[in-house]
Amino acid sequence: MLHFESDYIEGTHPEILAYFTEVGDRKLTGYGTDEICDSAKEKIRKACNCPDAEIFFLSGGTQSNLVVIRSLLRLYEGVISANTGHVNGHEAGAIEAGGHKVLTLPHHNGKLDPEETEQYIIGFYQDENHEHIVKPGMVYISQPTEYGTLYSLDELQRLHEVCEKYSIPLYLDGARLGYALASPENDMTLEDIAKYCDVFYIGGTKVGAMLGEAVVFPRHLVDGFFTIVKQSGALLAKGWILGGQFDALFSNDLYYRCGKNAIDMAARLKEGLKEKGYTFYLESPTNQQFLILENNQLEALKEKASFGFWEIYDPDHVVVRLATSWGTKIEEVEALLELM
Amino acid sequence: MLHFESDYIEGTHPEILAYFTEVGDRKLTGYGTDEICDSAKEKIRKACNCPDAEIFFLSGGTQSNLVVIRSLLRLYEGVISANTGHVNGHEAGAIEAGGHKVLTLPHHNGKLDPEETEQYIIGFYQDENHEHIVKPGMVYISQPTEYGTLYSLDELQRLHEVCEKYSIPLYLDGARLGYALASPENDMTLEDIAKYCDVFYIGGTKVGAMLGEAVVFPRHLVDGFFTIVKQSGALLAKGWILGGQFDALFSNDLYYRCGKNAIDMAARLKEGLKEKGYTFYLESPTNQQFLILENNQLEALKEKASFGFWEIYDPDHVVVRLATSWGTKIEEVEALLELM
Amino acid sequence: MLHFESDYIEGTHPEILAYFTEVGDRKLTGYGTDEICDSAKEKIRKACNCPDAEIFFLSGGTQSNLVVIRSLLRLYEGVISANTGHVNGHEAGAIEAGGHKVLTLPHHNGKLDPEETEQYIIGFYQDENHEHIVKPGMVYISQPTEYGTLYSLDELQRLHEVCEKYSIPLYLDGARLGYALASPENDMTLEDIAKYCDVFYIGGTKVGAMLGEAVVFPRHLVDGFFTIVKQSGALLAKGWILGGQFDALFSNDLYYRCGKNAIDMAARLKEGLKEKGYTFYLESPTNQQFLILENNQLEALKEKASFGFWEIYDPDHVVVRLATSWGTKIEEVEALLELM
Amino acid sequence: MLHFESDYIEGTHPEILAYFTEVGDRKLTGYGTDEICDSAKEKIRKACNCPDAEIFFLSGGTQSNLVVIRSLLRLYEGVISANTGHVNGHEAGAIEAGGHKVLTLPHHNGKLDPEETEQYIIGFYQDENHEHIVKPGMVYISQPTEYGTLYSLDELQRLHEVCEKYSIPLYLDGARLGYALASPENDMTLEDIAKYCDVFYIGGTKVGAMLGEAVVFPRHLVDGFFTIVKQSGALLAKGWILGGQFDALFSNDLYYRCGKNAIDMAARLKEGLKEKGYTFYLESPTNQQFLILENNQLEALKEKASFGFWEIYDPDHVVVRLATSWGTKIEEVEALLELM
Repeated sequence: MLHFESDYIEGTHPEILAYFTEVGDRKLTGYGTDEICDSAKEKIRKACNCPDAEIFFLSGGTQSNLVVIRSLLRLYEGVISANTGHVNGHEAGAIEAGGHKVLTLPHHNGKLDPEETEQYIIGFYQDENHEHIVKPGMVYISQPTEYGTLYSLDELQRLHEVCEKYSIPLYLDGARLGYALASPENDMTLEDIAKYCDVFYIGGTKVGAMLGEAVVFPRHLVDGFFTIVKQSGALLAKGWILGGQFDALFSNDLYYRCGKNAIDMAARLKEGLKEKGYTFYLESPTNQQFLILENNQLEALKEKASFGFWEIYDPDHVVVRLATSWGTKIEEVEALLELM
Repeated sequence: MLHFESDYIEGTHPEILAYFTEVGDRKLTGYGTDEICDSAKEKIRKACNCPDAEIFFLSGGTQSNLVVIRSLLRLYEGVISANTGHVNGHEAGAIEAGGHKVLTLPHHNGKLDPEETEQYIIGFYQDENHEHIVKPGMVYISQPTEYGTLYSLDELQRLHEVCEKYSIPLYLDGARLGYALASPENDMTLEDIAKYCDVFYIGGTKVGAMLGEAVVFPRHLVDGFFTIVKQSGALLAKGWILGGQFDALFSNDLYYRCGKNAIDMAARLKEGLKEKGYTFYLESPTNQQFLILENNQLEALKEKASFGFWEIYDPDHVVVRLATSWGTKIEEVEALLELM
Repeated sequence: MLHFESDYIEGTHPEILAYFTEVGDRKLTGYGTDEICDSAKEKIRKACNCPDAEIFFLSGGTQSNLVVIRSLLRLYEGVISANTGHVNGHEAGAIEAGGHKVLTLPHHNGKLDPEETEQYIIGFYQDENHEHIVKPGMVYISQPTEYGTLYSLDELQRLHEVCEKYSIPLYLDGARLGYALASPENDMTLEDIAKYCDVFYIGGTKVGAMLGEAVVFPRHLVDGFFTIVKQSGALLAKGWILGGQFDALFSNDLYYRCGKNAIDMAARLKEGLKEKGYTFYLESPTNQQFLILENNQLEALKEKASFGFWEIYDPDHVVVRLATSWGTKIEEVEALLELM
Repeated sequence: MLHFESDYIEGTHPEILAYFTEVGDRKLTGYGTDEICDSAKEKIRKACNCPDAEIFFLSGGTQSNLVVIRSLLRLYEGVISANTGHVNGHEAGAIEAGGHKVLTLPHHNGKLDPEETEQYIIGFYQDENHEHIVKPGMVYISQPTEYGTLYSLDELQRLHEVCEKYSIPLYLDGARLGYALASPENDMTLEDIAKYCDVFYIGGTKVGAMLGEAVVFPRHLVDGFFTIVKQSGALLAKGWILGGQFDALFSNDLYYRCGKNAIDMAARLKEGLKEKGYTFYLESPTNQQFLILENNQLEALKEKASFGFWEIYDPDHVVVRLATSWGTKIEEVEALLELM
């Protein structure tokens, strides 16, 4: 069976395992106050060129989103997201369970349009009854998006300007950030992200780690954030389990090497599938590729290759996701191309 | 100044005031356990032909929606609503503050389409990842809708069938129900509503009362509903203040007479405006009429007549709402027509 | 049947009914933006000597508590209350449903001790692990307390000093404030309360009104409070129904006259019961009196007089509450004394 | 520095590291649907003698408590706990943030008394106003307790009987369950726990694992639990990271061996400290020992040994916690004894 259904089906990166084997028997203080977390934070601060950044290590993407969003919004505020945003459709209502509405705008290849975002905020303030409705209190984007597409640096800057103008924070969900940074079409650095976002997270789970996401507040920490993390059940007693993932990922360029492999494999896969005449749902420059397959094509492949079901395209076709990762081997890609 | 901005700008109906003047000095037990509430409930049970209905009197529409929806949904469920539904856009995020997502479908003249509703639910179950997303746990409709339009009995039955098939409750928001029941285009009775809905409320605030909505569970009461009402801050110590509104409204056909006047006045208004060539945003058979006005027309009228701002239509036009009510007088309608 | 079970069993005060009969047919704008609310607010501002106070009219006590507390606390904060505080035991978990812990301290005749309150806060900051526990973010008191007792002005000042020292708001629940103000043992004015509290409410429901409490922010309004009120289902479309109660109560000293009658009747009742040798659970200077009765005494009286059950004292005795109100007549008190 | 401040300061058990090194490069399906989780679940089912048990692996104790409690309680219910229960004082208000009140009873050496628990529930139903207050909907206990003490099998059975009588679930927090099971004073097995509890968790974080707790529903799973886990941000994409901890811990008696070492070390520590005349705060048969130290004693030790601050005993004394663990070495214990 060839596995292309997601980028979190791989085991742990060998360098991370080696890291834990090495630190395994140290005694370390609890709740992220240890030297491993300190080291990881320092490496991330350097990578972001943010010496004063506050960093928290959480376990997963939905957890990071719910903790960050809940901590930043006031009771009467909601978070603006593309309708395809992970927080809108794929988190089982976590944001709403935390008390907040996701205010959706139509996506453009998975992205928010800066202009439309500003128009929405302007419209809110122009509405005479706006005190009766949910106030836009935050903008949520993901990089790469849920469709594998990328914001350009220019788009990020423009979203930043909109947010700054209306004094609302810009939050970037980087569950797969490593795969964005390694894409040849990417034109922004971690430093750019830290400059233009008020908070963001660097995803580990999908980029080589066992688990873990690094939430970065480049400038201002939310008041009481540690306690909110605890209250949300997101504080690990052995915080260094999370910190260690990033201490390893940010050593020897591992995070970038993980990203690079996935991008290279996806490029080869895309090229091969295009040659074979497959139709792509949209153009993605990162590790997730979306194909339109006939239902019976998918059926025929079921026994030999595993894809991610995305959505029904029409009664006869389905959209599937093929994801490469840090661990995908060229032999697997070629085998899949041969199969298809 | 001619007031047509809403149907809750009128004072209290004189028959309700007379009622309270009469019962004013009785001693009555607390929290809705009194004889006035008992009498009102009995009258509503008769009107709905539901001898076993459980009825609760709450203060307002948003309160009724949040208490009912919260009490019926499980943690992981959301409520299906037209995107124009009051719970989606006009309640300041009350449903989300209660922990639940509003699952929106595109409206058709303010209404949910039964077919599309079923398709949405089918789609949920067909999604292999549906355990990762919010489960549709309830259907919310309003009668009349936020655009003054009406569900037909056939549409109500079909929504009921969908809900029954997937074992989810159907909830009808009747904030302006009196204006639906009195419309010549209406083809359903309170008895029909009680038959096809699992819970609904009969609006008082906008149909003559000082305040108050009567939440009706025709067959099965939600477990612990009284305590949920209390917990939500929705339990009045002097429950009879609410019960009394309905004891009066359901005496001598007052509720129907209130509805009838608004409908008659709206019909005359509509006829007059059509004669004058005004463009309606959509066709409404109830007491709310939606006009497309030029910005400067609205500006010119501002000093003499008051409308409800609805939305920006295009840079030069705006949609406004004109609402009649139980208290609108024919002289006011004629004066407005003359003015316009 | 003689009714002494509570102070909210009386109907509406005749002067309030007269007020509504008079204003009944005015057209008034929605959501508390009308001239009646304006007038009521102005009268309350004068009574509190707070020309800049922001005032909101809500429907009931639990609603006021949950909306105020939720709007003031941050996610990781709780509210300090005496264990006998209404918010702790009598609101069906409304504060917790809003996401916050009630941090209880032992009561002293229903009151918080300022010294103990400060010690609790000091203890919190001394705890090395305090980032793992709920931060005291507010102090809640009620005047009179749930046992009818009164804070002295000195106690209020000392609580204020503690709160100011640790930058947390002091909130006073005045559900029965009229009965405190009229007590001969009271030594604080509305002006004092406005000076030393950050927010408080003046209770209407139990002091003559049909319903309604006036929430007063003497100096600083909470950001977005209007929207939070709406979101909580606490915003009445016809806000003037609430405002009118207070416009009437704060005319011709009605609020004080209501208080005075209840206090006079309670004094006579207390005197009479003491003469007859009844045992009081504690000494209350306001309209609620707590008696210890033998179970069979209570049983014997059941048919002729109605009391409020308070708690089981021991297997043979029970604590009951006798409440007088603005509407209690001297003949009722004498009849009860004769009966007992 | 000698570290006795907690049982989660140890690194990862070597057998667990070895396990992950072995499985490291497998491709595994997401969200706990993999073969490693299946294997771990099967081992736990055997250990509990519950072939139909449903098992979920979560990341930590507070997370397990909030997810389990929230999923089991209805809106108007609270959870009964000893006032010393972890859910009451040490989880930053996580239960309340989930909407529920913790209903506290006085502890007896950290334990709930079954008799008092029943009396509390009886009292609730006897209260005429019980529809106005939070309903006891669950009983929470921890084994060992927060003070290291143990429920006997007889006490567990009696709590079970109370819960069964009033149809409320009994939930056991086993954050340190391994240390209870290995105590010579323990008289209950995992099978007993599964028999008498409706849900419980087997703690990994504090008993050798990197992280992870195994939530066990011996008979009935809560409806929608998977989605609630997701919504709470508690679902790891790589679920096998958690499952693997338990697959290793339940191989070759590792879980029991971890427990045994801590208990043996604690016994030696206790014996040694008693010989030296130290005063224990209470008698604990497990791995946590509570000492009363003079403030200056603690100060003097600060540089050489690290304890857990527990609480202020009196102005001159403090209660500290000394915890042993699976990794504590006899040399460390002897060194500490020598030091003290």
